[in-house]
Amino acid sequence: MDAYGIEPRPGVVYLVGAGPGAPDLITVRGLRCLRQADVVIYDRLVNEALLAEAPPQAERIFVGKRPGRHACSQAEIHALMIQRARAGKVVVRLKGGDPFIFGRGGEELMALAAAGIPCVVVPGVTSATGVPAAVGLPLTHRHVAGAVAIVSAHHAGDRDDVDWAALARVDTLVILMGVARLSRVVELLRHHGRAASTPVAIIERGTWPDERVIVGTLADILSQAEVAGVCPPAIVVVGEVVNLWRQGAGVPLPRGEHVLSFSD
Amino acid sequence: MDAYGIEPRPGVVYLVGAGPGAPDLITVRGLRCLRQADVVIYDRLVNEALLAEAPPQAERIFVGKRPGRHACSQAEIHALMIQRARAGKVVVRLKGGDPFIFGRGGEELMALAAAGIPCVVVPGVTSATGVPAAVGLPLTHRHVAGAVAIVSAHHAGDRDDVDWAALARVDTLVILMGVARLSRVVELLRHHGRAASTPVAIIERGTWPDERVIVGTLADILSQAEVAGVCPPAIVVVGEVVNLWRQGAGVPLPRGEHVLSFSD
Repeated sequence: MDAYGIEPRPGVVYLVGAGPGAPDLITVRGLRCLRQADVVIYDRLVNEALLAEAPPQAERIFVGKRPGRHACSQAEIHALMIQRARAGKVVVRLKGGDPFIFGRGGEELMALAAAGIPCVVVPGVTSATGVPAAVGLPLTHRHVAGAVAIVSAHHAGDRDDVDWAALARVDTLVILMGVARLSRVVELLRHHGRAASTPVAIIERGTWPDERVIVGTLADILSQAEVAGVCPPAIVVVGEVVNLWRQGAGVPLPRGEHVLSFSD
Repeated sequence: MDAYGIEPRPGVVYLVGAGPGAPDLITVRGLRCLRQADVVIYDRLVNEALLAEAPPQAERIFVGKRPGRHACSQAEIHALMIQRARAGKVVVRLKGGDPFIFGRGGEELMALAAAGIPCVVVPGVTSATGVPAAVGLPLTHRHVAGAVAIVSAHHAGDRDDVDWAALARVDTLVILMGVARLSRVVELLRHHGRAASTPVAIIERGTWPDERVIVGTLADILSQAEVAGVCPPAIVVVGEVVNLWRQGAGVPLPRGEHVLSFSD
């Protein structure tokens, strides 16, 4: 396996997707980059266990938001990456999920390109697909869901700069960072004609040991979430695939194993 | 890293996503399962280098389609998994991409559940997100694309059992297995109002050494694809993010590295 893929090089920035949460859901290529890093620049949602995989002497720089502390601006993150790469370091920019699914990875790539810094993107398992998969919830399923759309709830604000009328009509919809704006998301989907009976699942801290799944419908998911005390990070899945999963009434086993009692 | 995640157990079926193509884009957890497998049941799009990671004595069963040969039916695949699991084997069902994004993984999970066989889903990097990421093409980007939808071109047949009118309105659309039905996909998107000038990228054999990217618009991508002689496997990306990438005119370096000349 070590004979494949890339050989991390000094002066290059590796935009690495850390995966949805559990440390061993990073890719083999991503782990290889991390183990050869001189500098690791990481976000809040990255599992701390991954940081332990970098060499002991590697510089570890946290650039996420933490309550009551200064959060790095995007410009500061760009400047850091560029400075360390110019100093001849192997720079790993470690981002939760996949770098290019609502991770501002595109902006970081462009900033590096403008500065003439070589950049390699190492894809990661995005939470949007990896978290439902890990609990046994298929986002697509023959005769049930032929398409899936992914959106961030950041686009469910006052300006609504995405086409929610279109998203409401896609068989399966995955909403990232959906907890804080859940009521607005439900409102938008209902307003654009999605039935109140549409099943919804909220997966809180997906693939972490304290993962929880809360299920309901567009009619009652807000109260379900409130009763359960759902907190970020969580993803929201809307569509008939949730009923498929719920009918199975998955019996969780230790360490992410599930025995499902689906009937075919 | 070995201390994390799951410990593969006899009598359990692991539905493992192999990732988009390059062998080291499997997850660490997926590789761990593979290295402890007694039986590996695999598809056509799985990289052969991954099979070499299973123990030498492991049984390797090909169930994909190959020209001129009998292809296993879905029912035969189910029966195989169930039989081997009941015989007390560690069974790895290795599927290209992610098992639950157009991989019929949901059907396999349900068949196992109906037979009372424990099943663990190990998410993989789906080609839909991993292939664009690896070439530096962000599917979402602030002020350019706030949502992404994924569909299989198998749903662009005569029956059109997904809502193409809705899909045509999502900022970024990724079409899997899109080569054979490219003309129908273009026709559907044009019919539902997507502008002829909308940029399109076809990524052929993404993350493999002979990967190619062909770019055009909805007006000319068919002729571009014909000139280039595009063959499966390939994914199609439709939306303004393709222009963002094309303006960068990425200069490919060996082994998947890219220097992009974006200006911010």
